[in-house]
Amino acid sequence: MSAEFEHRLVLVAEEIEATLAEILQIATDPPPPARLAEAMRYAVLGGGKRLRPFLVVEAARLAGGDPATAMRAGAAIELLHVYSLVHDDLPAMDDDGLRRGRPTVHKAYDEATAILVGDALQSLAFEVLADGATAEDPSIRADLVLTLAQAAGMAGMAGGQMLDLEAEGRYDAGEAQLDAAAIRQLQAMKTGALLAAAVRMGAIIGRADRDADRALAVYGEALGAAFQVADDILDIESSANAMGKATGKDAGRGKGTLVGALGLPAAKRERDRLADAAVAALADFGPEADILRAAARFSADRRS
Amino acid sequence: MSAEFEHRLVLVAEEIEATLAEILQIATDPPPPARLAEAMRYAVLGGGKRLRPFLVVEAARLAGGDPATAMRAGAAIELLHVYSLVHDDLPAMDDDGLRRGRPTVHKAYDEATAILVGDALQSLAFEVLADGATAEDPSIRADLVLTLAQAAGMAGMAGGQMLDLEAEGRYDAGEAQLDAAAIRQLQAMKTGALLAAAVRMGAIIGRADRDADRALAVYGEALGAAFQVADDILDIESSANAMGKATGKDAGRGKGTLVGALGLPAAKRERDRLADAAVAALADFGPEADILRAAARFSADRRS
Repeated sequence: MSAEFEHRLVLVAEEIEATLAEILQIATDPPPPARLAEAMRYAVLGGGKRLRPFLVVEAARLAGGDPATAMRAGAAIELLHVYSLVHDDLPAMDDDGLRRGRPTVHKAYDEATAILVGDALQSLAFEVLADGATAEDPSIRADLVLTLAQAAGMAGMAGGQMLDLEAEGRYDAGEAQLDAAAIRQLQAMKTGALLAAAVRMGAIIGRADRDADRALAVYGEALGAAFQVADDILDIESSANAMGKATGKDAGRGKGTLVGALGLPAAKRERDRLADAAVAALADFGPEADILRAAARFSADRRS
Repeated sequence: MSAEFEHRLVLVAEEIEATLAEILQIATDPPPPARLAEAMRYAVLGGGKRLRPFLVVEAARLAGGDPATAMRAGAAIELLHVYSLVHDDLPAMDDDGLRRGRPTVHKAYDEATAILVGDALQSLAFEVLADGATAEDPSIRADLVLTLAQAAGMAGMAGGQMLDLEAEGRYDAGEAQLDAAAIRQLQAMKTGALLAAAVRMGAIIGRADRDADRALAVYGEALGAAFQVADDILDIESSANAMGKATGKDAGRGKGTLVGALGLPAAKRERDRLADAAVAALADFGPEADILRAAARFSADRRS
């Protein structure tokens, strides 16, 4: 089953890559500026596990939704995710020069271009969702837009990034750190909201009944939380291995992490408990939900 | 009629202000970070003619659309417009410290907050449009999202800002300036697309028939172009009055303007011709379109 999961993860990533490439080269009138279009392709194509699209596609499959709709919706959430990476990397934000081993967009181009790439990717995500080519039923399209917009906005991803920057500021000023509850809240907004939205978008595409929708919502939230604790643990452990020291990049910047707040053993227990909760949420489904169960384990146990 | 236009412009601006205030204080779970919510209100509330919402509202009225839907859609396009102002003002973009006589968001707060304010305002614009509270009919909601997203994105507003920055770069490098055709294209994307989208959104809300939709589309494009030439002229003339010199802020930066490319008299003729074209596009409507006719004159002749 784990082999099947990995096989499907790669398969969906390939299809998403092709869908993204197609979306990014659609002819518009007027055409977009060459520099902007090129920088958007640079940011989007050729990388990533495409976990959020995978969750859209697999949740939609479980709920009996149209696979073509799911693929387009998966591409849309990836466009939105990439916009957030491009903006988070900016000098005024996390100031990162490398991502996936390549210069970040503001390094490969410039800051203004990176701001516009992020802005245009966000618009494009909603354009794709609202387009009749994504789903015939306009109520599915409107619901997809609403779900993604709520997850992306001030009470979701953007709000979480704001909390993260505020926590860093407090660290730099020598002030009190966030406690575990505040970090969980921050992470639920910054990372969890979009992962949970991916699963909910799949449920919308399949017009899941009330029980299935509820189960998938619980699953998505637990998976999102497990993913982020795993990230904190990875930050510590990969740094320890790669750089021979015990503090990771995030911890060293004053970013609140659950490892910092709880200690490594307790953080690992929380991660495993969250993965168990995600799997448990799918108890009423049969083997057809095994891929999503494996995705929850993968989100908690990933090595990169 | 001009008095009625000005009366209605103020009236709609007041209603839009109230709608925006309401949207920005809606309780979410979790709540947005206080700093982000406050900076979003700072950016959005208390200023501006609200011309884009006015066009949505008046085009919807002409097309027989629901006024409450139009007011919400008007608020959404204003949120999107304000996001673009906040990002355009950033140091890496136009580097402006003042807007409407107040410090810009990155001056009043900081750069990271300003980036997130813009990002969250864009998400919020689409959230408002997709929300069932905006229109019962999901096909209206999906069409509104699609129209606004296309106008905002790489082939619209964001693309136009990219062209503008590229033109500035060429100016700084002493390279050839844009010709009039290239400037018209740039302006159609950067400013015209959103103004035209406002009118089209009104037509969508009223489910205008094919002829009316076509007439409103021509009207919106001509109005958008007239608005921008008027802006170029205003830039020169208000600078000349206020600062006793003949070059304006935009021209002095190397931003391509039609005044620069054509000279002032020809630019004024183009502005008036475009306003005439906007009015002419509404020839098949009766006096019920007088407000929109006045809006076209206003966009061309405004003093600020």
